[in-house]
Amino acid sequence: MAKQRTRLIPTGLFDLASPIRIPGLGRKWRLGGPPGIETAEEVATPPEEGRVRIRCLDYGPERVAEREVEDLGAFLTEPRPEWAAVRWVNMDGLHPFVINSLREAYPFHTLAAEDVLHVPQRSKLEAYDDHLFVVAHMMSTGDGTLTDEQVSLVHRPDVLLTFQERPGDVWDPVRARIQKDSSRLRRSGSDYLLYALLDALVDNIFPILEAYGDRLEAIENRIVENATPRELQQLYAAKRELVSLRRVLWPLRQVADDAQRAEYGGFQEETAPFFRDVYDHTLQVLDIVETYREMASGLTDLYMSSISNKMNEVMKVLTIMASLFIPVTFVAGVYGMNFQFIPELSFRYSYPLFWGVCISITVGLLIYFRRRGWIGG
Amino acid sequence: MAKQRTRLIPTGLFDLASPIRIPGLGRKWRLGGPPGIETAEEVATPPEEGRVRIRCLDYGPERVAEREVEDLGAFLTEPRPEWAAVRWVNMDGLHPFVINSLREAYPFHTLAAEDVLHVPQRSKLEAYDDHLFVVAHMMSTGDGTLTDEQVSLVHRPDVLLTFQERPGDVWDPVRARIQKDSSRLRRSGSDYLLYALLDALVDNIFPILEAYGDRLEAIENRIVENATPRELQQLYAAKRELVSLRRVLWPLRQVADDAQRAEYGGFQEETAPFFRDVYDHTLQVLDIVETYREMASGLTDLYMSSISNKMNEVMKVLTIMASLFIPVTFVAGVYGMNFQFIPELSFRYSYPLFWGVCISITVGLLIYFRRRGWIGG
Amino acid sequence: MAKQRTRLIPTGLFDLASPIRIPGLGRKWRLGGPPGIETAEEVATPPEEGRVRIRCLDYGPERVAEREVEDLGAFLTEPRPEWAAVRWVNMDGLHPFVINSLREAYPFHTLAAEDVLHVPQRSKLEAYDDHLFVVAHMMSTGDGTLTDEQVSLVHRPDVLLTFQERPGDVWDPVRARIQKDSSRLRRSGSDYLLYALLDALVDNIFPILEAYGDRLEAIENRIVENATPRELQQLYAAKRELVSLRRVLWPLRQVADDAQRAEYGGFQEETAPFFRDVYDHTLQVLDIVETYREMASGLTDLYMSSISNKMNEVMKVLTIMASLFIPVTFVAGVYGMNFQFIPELSFRYSYPLFWGVCISITVGLLIYFRRRGWIGG
Amino acid sequence: MAKQRTRLIPTGLFDLASPIRIPGLGRKWRLGGPPGIETAEEVATPPEEGRVRIRCLDYGPERVAEREVEDLGAFLTEPRPEWAAVRWVNMDGLHPFVINSLREAYPFHTLAAEDVLHVPQRSKLEAYDDHLFVVAHMMSTGDGTLTDEQVSLVHRPDVLLTFQERPGDVWDPVRARIQKDSSRLRRSGSDYLLYALLDALVDNIFPILEAYGDRLEAIENRIVENATPRELQQLYAAKRELVSLRRVLWPLRQVADDAQRAEYGGFQEETAPFFRDVYDHTLQVLDIVETYREMASGLTDLYMSSISNKMNEVMKVLTIMASLFIPVTFVAGVYGMNFQFIPELSFRYSYPLFWGVCISITVGLLIYFRRRGWIGG
Amino acid sequence: MAKQRTRLIPTGLFDLASPIRIPGLGRKWRLGGPPGIETAEEVATPPEEGRVRIRCLDYGPERVAEREVEDLGAFLTEPRPEWAAVRWVNMDGLHPFVINSLREAYPFHTLAAEDVLHVPQRSKLEAYDDHLFVVAHMMSTGDGTLTDEQVSLVHRPDVLLTFQERPGDVWDPVRARIQKDSSRLRRSGSDYLLYALLDALVDNIFPILEAYGDRLEAIENRIVENATPRELQQLYAAKRELVSLRRVLWPLRQVADDAQRAEYGGFQEETAPFFRDVYDHTLQVLDIVETYREMASGLTDLYMSSISNKMNEVMKVLTIMASLFIPVTFVAGVYGMNFQFIPELSFRYSYPLFWGVCISITVGLLIYFRRRGWIGG
Repeated sequence: MAKQRTRLIPTGLFDLASPIRIPGLGRKWRLGGPPGIETAEEVATPPEEGRVRIRCLDYGPERVAEREVEDLGAFLTEPRPEWAAVRWVNMDGLHPFVINSLREAYPFHTLAAEDVLHVPQRSKLEAYDDHLFVVAHMMSTGDGTLTDEQVSLVHRPDVLLTFQERPGDVWDPVRARIQKDSSRLRRSGSDYLLYALLDALVDNIFPILEAYGDRLEAIENRIVENATPRELQQLYAAKRELVSLRRVLWPLRQVADDAQRAEYGGFQEETAPFFRDVYDHTLQVLDIVETYREMASGLTDLYMSSISNKMNEVMKVLTIMASLFIPVTFVAGVYGMNFQFIPELSFRYSYPLFWGVCISITVGLLIYFRRRGWIGG
Repeated sequence: MAKQRTRLIPTGLFDLASPIRIPGLGRKWRLGGPPGIETAEEVATPPEEGRVRIRCLDYGPERVAEREVEDLGAFLTEPRPEWAAVRWVNMDGLHPFVINSLREAYPFHTLAAEDVLHVPQRSKLEAYDDHLFVVAHMMSTGDGTLTDEQVSLVHRPDVLLTFQERPGDVWDPVRARIQKDSSRLRRSGSDYLLYALLDALVDNIFPILEAYGDRLEAIENRIVENATPRELQQLYAAKRELVSLRRVLWPLRQVADDAQRAEYGGFQEETAPFFRDVYDHTLQVLDIVETYREMASGLTDLYMSSISNKMNEVMKVLTIMASLFIPVTFVAGVYGMNFQFIPELSFRYSYPLFWGVCISITVGLLIYFRRRGWIGG
Repeated sequence: MAKQRTRLIPTGLFDLASPIRIPGLGRKWRLGGPPGIETAEEVATPPEEGRVRIRCLDYGPERVAEREVEDLGAFLTEPRPEWAAVRWVNMDGLHPFVINSLREAYPFHTLAAEDVLHVPQRSKLEAYDDHLFVVAHMMSTGDGTLTDEQVSLVHRPDVLLTFQERPGDVWDPVRARIQKDSSRLRRSGSDYLLYALLDALVDNIFPILEAYGDRLEAIENRIVENATPRELQQLYAAKRELVSLRRVLWPLRQVADDAQRAEYGGFQEETAPFFRDVYDHTLQVLDIVETYREMASGLTDLYMSSISNKMNEVMKVLTIMASLFIPVTFVAGVYGMNFQFIPELSFRYSYPLFWGVCISITVGLLIYFRRRGWIGG
Repeated sequence: MAKQRTRLIPTGLFDLASPIRIPGLGRKWRLGGPPGIETAEEVATPPEEGRVRIRCLDYGPERVAEREVEDLGAFLTEPRPEWAAVRWVNMDGLHPFVINSLREAYPFHTLAAEDVLHVPQRSKLEAYDDHLFVVAHMMSTGDGTLTDEQVSLVHRPDVLLTFQERPGDVWDPVRARIQKDSSRLRRSGSDYLLYALLDALVDNIFPILEAYGDRLEAIENRIVENATPRELQQLYAAKRELVSLRRVLWPLRQVADDAQRAEYGGFQEETAPFFRDVYDHTLQVLDIVETYREMASGLTDLYMSSISNKMNEVMKVLTIMASLFIPVTFVAGVYGMNFQFIPELSFRYSYPLFWGVCISITVGLLIYFRRRGWIGG
Repeated sequence: MAKQRTRLIPTGLFDLASPIRIPGLGRKWRLGGPPGIETAEEVATPPEEGRVRIRCLDYGPERVAEREVEDLGAFLTEPRPEWAAVRWVNMDGLHPFVINSLREAYPFHTLAAEDVLHVPQRSKLEAYDDHLFVVAHMMSTGDGTLTDEQVSLVHRPDVLLTFQERPGDVWDPVRARIQKDSSRLRRSGSDYLLYALLDALVDNIFPILEAYGDRLEAIENRIVENATPRELQQLYAAKRELVSLRRVLWPLRQVADDAQRAEYGGFQEETAPFFRDVYDHTLQVLDIVETYREMASGLTDLYMSSISNKMNEVMKVLTIMASLFIPVTFVAGVYGMNFQFIPELSFRYSYPLFWGVCISITVGLLIYFRRRGWIGG
């Protein structure tokens, strides 16, 4: 039953095995190696067919053309059509050979190339003299799975390169907008395209956060009703996942703030308010994550208190049961003694009297317990 | 009984279902869509009658005129009376068509238009070259219900546009002041009107906070008297609600600070102290929220400790009862044995001696327990 | 007994009903009203006799004159004596009519007038072009009562206006210093007087904090000896009171810092080190409050742990008692059975053997408990 | 035994009565009095003999002379030898008369004089036009006692005045270095002397912190072995002492940072790296204190958990004992009944059967408890 | 078994005896001594053979030469080959004589020399006019041991001096890159070498952090399965170790940031992005440490809650057992009494009736317990 529910919502919501990767962990290390892309050998070897998929989208105010790049060498040497004010080259799958080829046509810093390849990196924005390098995280859900993928973007005045780990992204609506003749995207430069892509990345986080909120609320309801160890483990997993999420999303704020203020010639002034808007959305994202973290903390307290309350209940039952019967059992034991001289034994009304005493003790104790609020009320 | 009390004060005070919305959650998403207002179709469709209500208030030092706008197109084309130094257009209900029409007459940024429509947003102030955009939250109580509504304000040197989600607001006293001939509002520009509206928004939060304080105090009193799980759930709800409240109110501080310092031509210098006053009030608001949060935390500790204390009491009763009767029950059991050779059985004073032993044991244990402070004291 | 002790020290030390008011709470609200002082009617009505008391102190290097102002109108129109370099007008009791009259003679901002009247406000310093407005809090103790009163100070180059809520203040030593011919106060300007008054306000907080410290130490001693629920409630009240205290005192730091740096023509350069000294003292005050808060937190932990320790003790006693007697009671029960064929019943030494078995079991368990450290040690 | 250990290490390590004084507490107050040193009368009265001890150390690259000052008046009027580039006047014991006399010869601000006298103050550095005033804390250990003493230093271009509360300090190695002909101290100015003294103050804190560390480790070991309430109280005292320590040491960081950056003509540029070194050491000191605070917090958690674990153990023993014997005692009770018609009573093998049943129940329960992990494993 | 696991991973992961040293602790103190390297005597004594090992690596774009320095005096006087653009002198083992000799040939500040010798220091970067001094920490693992070693680096425009505490480091890949003819290192200056060495230090921390992560996960799994006191102690050790780790790694961030911004003539502009990359990696390192700290905190909560849950289980068993048998034992006791007149004793069906009553009571209680959720479900 629990499993079925898991399928309906993204995995990674309060599983111990969360798909959210802490940047810097799980990379393969070439300790002490030079910065930049991989060994000469790796750089010289083209990828097997199908491992990397490159799509090029050229557009200007009047025309737009999208195509799959089959022969990278030919593509990079042929001239760009004159009407194409902006070129967006997107790569699905990371490979040193392809990155290096692109770097030769559209130069970017060797450290940026390293960060493209060595995923996952912390989100960041780095402005160089003639280009801008952005690392961001694309969180998306498809068929009930939450995926967290690093996206690297290299911005040059008339070109935008985007590198994804896997095929499939959240940018199809942006592509649709480019196809539309009258859209602002078509009329604007590559900086506006960069904004549109970052905006799509950030906006996609909101529905994921709502799924988190729904889960937390479900846990809350179950704790209020009946707290079991299952809720506890889910709470712990929730906290852990929110901690990871915060680590991944926190640097986004810096990226959006840097984009807004970047002293970089490639941005037009009128694009600044749009980056400010992205910044504003990252603030909302972080606010929500913080709120959930605080809620998860509050829920842990609630859980602990309700465990204590339950133990109190159990103890009260035990105490009441024991207190009611222990004294009367003693009395019964007294008259079970085999002493030869126990005068009560031969009295006529001893037995009813015995019951009278037992009932008095019991009623007295019940009244006492009621006064202390242990029964009823 | 509890229910009746709930009716007397705003709902949302320590209910799990709080009306306070975390900005960014619960919006409908058009992921990856263009910024700005909705689809062309939506923009082109005027709202059904009654869904949106527009009121226009023109005033200057000498005259004031208020009217309901019926025909938006006519209203926007007709010239403004000369005596009207300030025009305040208020819209109850959000609709793309209306917002777009207003934007054509009184231009403001497409991203601002987006934020007007996509509620709830984080409070913020954004200065553009010739206009200023403010998002704030209007918290009000009416017939026992707390409502939290986004208010968007667009300031231009001689016009102030305000957008509310629903009819009904906290600005009637401001309208009354505008109607008064000698009032400072009448003599001042649109920046002073903006101040007056923000000030009314912030001041309305204080009585709501006092209601929170009263509730917390009531919980405190009940915990001190007798802590039950009901108090625990209310405490958790209080914390949760205060966390949300803080998220909503925190950005207000930035808005008031930005208003005070905004490098924006539309503000006159003598209005700055007034915005500083609003800033000061938001600091007070946040101080109060923080104080309540710390009180709620302290109450959780108090609750937990008093649960522990109670359990201690229960355990003491059990231990005392069990310790008093278990040994003497054993003694009674001994002389209930059917061994043929138990010399005591036939002694003449065995029975009174037995009672003597029992009473000695009991008294001894009572003294011991008293010394440890478990009884009396 | 507890009550008597309370009388010896200021009330408000760890009472649930603390006299420390959170700024912004408990005011009467005129929501949406204009800033500044009250309605025209209120402003036009002079206060009843005795409700407000005004004292004027004129002084210069050579002379000093103090007098009670009976007729405010006459006082404000008559010229100031030439020898009076500084005039200090103090008002006990707040009244719109009086404040307005003073504002006409010595102009200050309408928002400042509002803050004078609407107590309690957050401590703050606001520099205007030709005057400075300070809100501070005067905490004092008299006949065992802690009082927290808002004091507002308006500084103009040659006049200082001070507004108190009630008669009685901590400034008598300052007045005595003004009366002394050779004192620095007499030779200095109104900025030095402002310093002297603020300094007196801050210095008066120290002995109050020491009373808090003594109380905390007393609670600590009682918890170490014997923790009862009474200590718990006092601890909670202590934390709550310290939280409020911090809210009230924290903004003082900003006031002192602002005074030190204020870009305001009315201050002479040589007074700056004196304001720095006040700043330094507020840092000490806040340090002490923080230390006490951390001590109170530590005490809560100590309390909780000693409750747990106590419960441990209670449980051990129960377990030992039950474990010692339950097995032997069973043995006694066995030989109380009425089976016809229980061979032991007729053995000659069954009874002493029985006792031997009981004592062996008991001693064995005692040794076991001692090894686990439950007895002795 | 515990006492003896206390003697071997500085007192104040985890005693409730710690020698560390919170600055601002425990002073005698002259509320509302003028700043500066005490009353005219106090200033006019020379100290009793022996209460104050003044030593003067004159040195230059070529010569050095140290002497006890007997007659302060004569000392202050006689000219300083020409070879003496630097004069260091040290005073043990604080007295208004002496401070005032020194102030006349080497002027420093009246507020500084106040801070010298009114100990304990917060550490601070205050730069005036022609002199610099430093308050620092000298922590030292001697014969097993930790002492915390305020040291005030007044720096003028060619004179350094130091004021200590009591005789005895940590500066003897500095004096020895001055006596050495080739030392850098001899060749440098008074700013380098100031550095050397501050450096000695800070460096002396490290071994004290190591003693704290050793104590914490000892507590840790005892908690891991066997947690008793004694450890709890020590932990609380440790936390309390570390809180105080942090309050005292925290401002040192500011002092060292201010010294490094002070815009003050009396410092030579090449001394700056030395003050940076002091700053660096204060960072280490604060790091260590923070680490210990976090360790103490962790230990409190460890303590609480091990108390819970112990209670779990106690409960398990009780539950096992009770569960094993309660059912069989019931069975024995059944056959102790005196009903006339209990067929089992006369069966031949009832008694052995009874034992069989008892043993079966017991073994069954033992297996159950083992499976739940309560026994063994 | 536990021991064997320890061998497979670095020691110091969650041992109470962690190899991570808090900077400032464990040094030998020369309190009040002069800054700089040791006594004249120590400086004058060359180290015993083998205690210190010096390697010199000269390289330029065209050639590279590495050699062991046997005779330090000769080495320092002989001229450097002309082709050697960069000289890297590495010292394994710290000795005053050697450091002093190097300082004469390649001057650096006496305080830097002090910090080289007095390990462990806080990581830091200090820019002087003509040289730069860096303290960093080299964490490495070899044969299952985690070691933390201070590395000091002195950068001059054409020389880099590195000082290690012990032989063995993480820089062999850097040396290999220098040997490669076409490498960027060979073509770049000493600032790029400094970057390469710092980068290797930081990158080596990642796999160590992954080992920490694996350990934490192992503890997590064991707590979820079955929480024992062993897990508790490991958790405490984990927290303690992570606290220390944070103290050691935190200042690294400042070092990397300072390197990026250093106003120091010895760095070329194009090296700045590389230092920015190191900064970025330190941020990742600190993010991971923080994440682990928060996970360890969460685990402590989880542990505490599961202990409480267990105690609840134990209490329920006890309560159920006691409640089921105590009443029926009383009933049995009643009919074991020896009163002469107990009518039930002689009824024919008393005994079966007795069993009926017992079973009814038991079943009733079982139903009650099931309803409360104590059994089953």
